[in-house]
Amino acid sequence: MNILVTINANYLKPLQVMLKSMFINNPQEEFYVYLIHSSLKEEELTALDQFISDHNHQLRAVTISDDYFKDAPILMHYTKEMYYRLLACKVLPPDLDRVLYLDPDIIVINELKTLYQLDLADYLYAAAYHKRVPIREINKIRLNAYEMEEYYNSGVLLMNLQLQRELIDEQEIFDFVDKYKNRLIMPDQDVLNSLYAKRIKTISEIKYNYDTRYYIYYRLMSKGEVDMDYVINNTSILHFCGKKKPWHKNYRGVFHALYKHYEKLTFRS
Amino acid sequence: MNILVTINANYLKPLQVMLKSMFINNPQEEFYVYLIHSSLKEEELTALDQFISDHNHQLRAVTISDDYFKDAPILMHYTKEMYYRLLACKVLPPDLDRVLYLDPDIIVINELKTLYQLDLADYLYAAAYHKRVPIREINKIRLNAYEMEEYYNSGVLLMNLQLQRELIDEQEIFDFVDKYKNRLIMPDQDVLNSLYAKRIKTISEIKYNYDTRYYIYYRLMSKGEVDMDYVINNTSILHFCGKKKPWHKNYRGVFHALYKHYEKLTFRS
Repeated sequence: MNILVTINANYLKPLQVMLKSMFINNPQEEFYVYLIHSSLKEEELTALDQFISDHNHQLRAVTISDDYFKDAPILMHYTKEMYYRLLACKVLPPDLDRVLYLDPDIIVINELKTLYQLDLADYLYAAAYHKRVPIREINKIRLNAYEMEEYYNSGVLLMNLQLQRELIDEQEIFDFVDKYKNRLIMPDQDVLNSLYAKRIKTISEIKYNYDTRYYIYYRLMSKGEVDMDYVINNTSILHFCGKKKPWHKNYRGVFHALYKHYEKLTFRS
Repeated sequence: MNILVTINANYLKPLQVMLKSMFINNPQEEFYVYLIHSSLKEEELTALDQFISDHNHQLRAVTISDDYFKDAPILMHYTKEMYYRLLACKVLPPDLDRVLYLDPDIIVINELKTLYQLDLADYLYAAAYHKRVPIREINKIRLNAYEMEEYYNSGVLLMNLQLQRELIDEQEIFDFVDKYKNRLIMPDQDVLNSLYAKRIKTISEIKYNYDTRYYIYYRLMSKGEVDMDYVINNTSILHFCGKKKPWHKNYRGVFHALYKHYEKLTFRS
């Protein structure tokens, strides 16, 4: 299974927790972890490579040099790294036809095979949209995006690399960013939703991109079905969205203890 | 390591979760699980025996027949099972000199060896008292117990069986229960505190009998030291005290996800 991550040094520890949880809960799989980065040091890469090979999986690092994406507009607060996810198809090996992108603020608590094997047909991506109505309405207004039907979360993206190489145009992305640069809040997610929403296959938010801030909301909306028992046994991907992260000192949240448990398994055993 | 449990059929599932968590987090240990019971069916015992031996540990069941403790007063709502913990030394094999009693509403998330090897010297038990001042004051008044200095929780008890056989007198316990029968709320715990408090060695509540209802309280009282990171890495025994249990449908609590995680490991892998 091909996994894609695009991190800088600040996320090295969470990335390892994410990987550890994924390895543990998918014992039958062989993982190839593609890492697109530009700023990681040699010793950081070596340590990550060691960690992954200790678990009998493989790291494949793709280092982006300065002249890549040289025409890309840069937004305040954001580096070129925001493009790595959107333009992965341009820098990953040309024979790779499918990859599952995962944010590092995730833990994988059940199997990924069903998601990975999803039939993508003519879709560029598979992703979950976060259905909470207020958020969707706000984003529609902000981006003025006629094409946008749902607001997809870009933290979990199954990518149809073959089709992306045909259909995704760097210049189109750069032009979009340039045009809307004062209005983009989460640039890669905004681009994804504005340019490609119709080419995204919708996957279950509850199963594959469960926003850990919304436990009560999900339980209510499902009339009690999606309770803790359901989540622990059926959700594959828990996503710690938002500014407060479970590795921060004063984090609070219903999955805090579970995150810390995987963190312990990652660094203390 | 000798473990003691005293359950009825209602607690068979939680018991397995407790045992599973203990096995996982104490991979170097060999466990002998003593079970004192009177009401479990043959097939329930067989299934439990299978579960434990599947994990390469041993079950040693002690069945209590009706004529045991025939002089014991019975309290409303309570069966004779309340005495199994207090009088374990009378029914366990005479060559057994030490056993660690654990409630079934517990998960063991770190090592038990340090606790188990504690020097008991002239103490009958080692136990943690729950320090919250209001509770202690209430209990002192209720039992009028001149001898009681702290209110020990009977959910985790390291037992000095050799000394108990010398010093614990069944009749003394029965007399006490008879005298206070209208005032006892948690009979075995009340007996323990009233008759034996001075013979109990105090162990750390945070490490060995962490009351999961009091996460915020512990964190505050420790000025932030005993936060989630500390608990996950240092606490050995999480105790889900109180009426609301994490295997109930509408449970809420900071360790809910972690409990469900161990429940999944117990029954679905």
